[in-house]
Amino acid sequence: MKKVLAINSGSSSFKYKLFSFPDEKVIALGMADRVGMENAVFKIKLSNGREYIKNMPIHDQEEAVKLLIEDLKKFYVVEDLREITGIGHRIVNGGEIFKESVRVGDKELQEIFDLGELAPLHNIPEANGIKAFLKIVPNVPQVAVFDTSYHQTLDPIHYLYSIPYEYYEDYGIRKYGAHGISISYVAPRAAKMLKKNPNLVNLIVCHLGSGASVTAVKRGKSYDTSMGISPLTGVTMGTRSGDFDPSALQRLMHKTGMNIDEAIDVLNYKSGLLGISGVSSDMRDLIESKDKRAKLARKIFINRVVRYVGAYAAELGRIDAVVFTAGVGEHDPGIRAGIMSSLRYLGLEPDFKANRTDGEKFISKPKSRVKALIVPTNEELMIAREVVRVVQ
Amino acid sequence: MKKVLAINSGSSSFKYKLFSFPDEKVIALGMADRVGMENAVFKIKLSNGREYIKNMPIHDQEEAVKLLIEDLKKFYVVEDLREITGIGHRIVNGGEIFKESVRVGDKELQEIFDLGELAPLHNIPEANGIKAFLKIVPNVPQVAVFDTSYHQTLDPIHYLYSIPYEYYEDYGIRKYGAHGISISYVAPRAAKMLKKNPNLVNLIVCHLGSGASVTAVKRGKSYDTSMGISPLTGVTMGTRSGDFDPSALQRLMHKTGMNIDEAIDVLNYKSGLLGISGVSSDMRDLIESKDKRAKLARKIFINRVVRYVGAYAAELGRIDAVVFTAGVGEHDPGIRAGIMSSLRYLGLEPDFKANRTDGEKFISKPKSRVKALIVPTNEELMIAREVVRVVQ
Repeated sequence: MKKVLAINSGSSSFKYKLFSFPDEKVIALGMADRVGMENAVFKIKLSNGREYIKNMPIHDQEEAVKLLIEDLKKFYVVEDLREITGIGHRIVNGGEIFKESVRVGDKELQEIFDLGELAPLHNIPEANGIKAFLKIVPNVPQVAVFDTSYHQTLDPIHYLYSIPYEYYEDYGIRKYGAHGISISYVAPRAAKMLKKNPNLVNLIVCHLGSGASVTAVKRGKSYDTSMGISPLTGVTMGTRSGDFDPSALQRLMHKTGMNIDEAIDVLNYKSGLLGISGVSSDMRDLIESKDKRAKLARKIFINRVVRYVGAYAAELGRIDAVVFTAGVGEHDPGIRAGIMSSLRYLGLEPDFKANRTDGEKFISKPKSRVKALIVPTNEELMIAREVVRVVQ
Repeated sequence: MKKVLAINSGSSSFKYKLFSFPDEKVIALGMADRVGMENAVFKIKLSNGREYIKNMPIHDQEEAVKLLIEDLKKFYVVEDLREITGIGHRIVNGGEIFKESVRVGDKELQEIFDLGELAPLHNIPEANGIKAFLKIVPNVPQVAVFDTSYHQTLDPIHYLYSIPYEYYEDYGIRKYGAHGISISYVAPRAAKMLKKNPNLVNLIVCHLGSGASVTAVKRGKSYDTSMGISPLTGVTMGTRSGDFDPSALQRLMHKTGMNIDEAIDVLNYKSGLLGISGVSSDMRDLIESKDKRAKLARKIFINRVVRYVGAYAAELGRIDAVVFTAGVGEHDPGIRAGIMSSLRYLGLEPDFKANRTDGEKFISKPKSRVKALIVPTNEELMIAREVVRVVQ
């Protein structure tokens, strides 16, 4: 039995999931958190449901990787490292270099570090994650799986900004998109539910989590997507502004005295649902709240998703289904209902009763010309599958 | 017979049109250009077709206004200033203060100057224009007509950005829109062609000129619009970027060393069709050009308009017609055809033969569920009508 680890690294943490193949079962999962601090924590949960938590200082990512390998052996999840086919790492931005997943050597690692310029908040910690695993388990193949690869099928018409062309050539300023790992899992799954050829299906995938995006999938491939050069833009998110007017940014900077980095930090961390509501970045808190601005934040979120679905319906011309996935998309019936109510003009007839509960299913009426689906995403499984594909 | 002047002031120029009422005929038009320079020029064209041009130094706007009044008398267009009911001035941004056109006294003039903060490129020269007329013809009513007033019906859901709410309260950072004078002319005209009640009609108005915007009109009122706090954003324009990603702006500033004002200048004056093509900001030049990037610029322009039409079709749910107006909208069949071809999913059946020529007409097939129209705009007439309405 093959085993594959899927890793999602942050700046002082990583989450992991160990799958067995070909049955694609999760045999262990967990995380290292607050790495580099005295009160770090390491968790492992086994397939028998038992969970073990260590509270102790973890000085760096390498030490965290060692703890993981030790625990996998200690709990007999892995007896010999050779059982592990490979370790897959989620990387947010592969730029124009990485059109698909790749086994990481020194050259690739350096390129991922260099791409950190485009996505500093994500790529640098992710590349550091790979570096730590390369050091601790040098004989296990490391595979980088990129959130942008799926969107490399975009036409220049869709990925270029309307600015001087040389800024694209010289500085790589273009739309890269994100959430590609999620959509590359969700889209074929939706095609299967629709009984359509995954290479012919036209979908609009609403990946709605604390980060949120809308993607137009044409004939199974990404055709357009709402996120831009970074995951800041597109629809309203938990703390991110989504689309924002540069001349409003100019006014904001002049009025507050913030410089561009400080202003972009406000757009990344203090905006979105949190900024509008003043209450919370979490949809669950906003539902509970009776606050007027909390309600307004939910309405704005729905409107921005509807705008993008409408825009992509126009770009695609014909669509088979609108697909909801990720935290909010999978678990917030009110948001889904709000969005679907505005899509009747497309021939989408919502099934509000089915919509009340979660899980992979149709939430449009059977006779609906355009379907609506919930498809719970599984990015870790997709990463593990990519490892199996790349490491033959 | 009443006579009304409509004025459009720039930083060193103004254009004027003199209408007679109630027949709404143009009895004189012209412009003062390069005001403040030695090689200034003053033009007047009469209803008999004769045109008179003066090349001479014009030191300031007041001197230009004097020349205008002198010429109107000299050519017997106006015998006595009392024939002039009022003078209407186009003002780009009325903020949240001016929900409709207003007769300008000292208080209003100061407010228009103050709003210059929101639209410095436009409001300041426009306010200076009013000031000059107030000085030279103090007994003639001056009326300010705002491009933003028409959009004051927007709901906060549509005009708020997803940033901390206090930035709206403290600094007026919100979407104001523009082109409202044009749309308030075009929308009722379209309703008449459609034989619909102008207060019930749902339209998507594509005002496509060197500045370009798309507006959703619901039951005759502005419901959403593509321009933001300033006329920079929305669809791709002649030299303006339209929507642009703030994190891409951050990268651009870091890479080039530009400050925010310099970067916004690039987005206002060197972007859009000009930036993409490297050839011209003028659609007519781009059609002629065999250059690959010139073609790309046209395709991107079409795509961005289609995106907004799609987004607003979703917001409106039901639409009666898509309306094309302004320079490109009225005179570029290729652009109209490109846009309409993507709107078949809405039930819009283009009449490509009718589309080949210009003029106010239907360019969709008679059986088309959603109609497409060309409606030549007439902002000056709308300004003059507002003067008649306000000065009773």
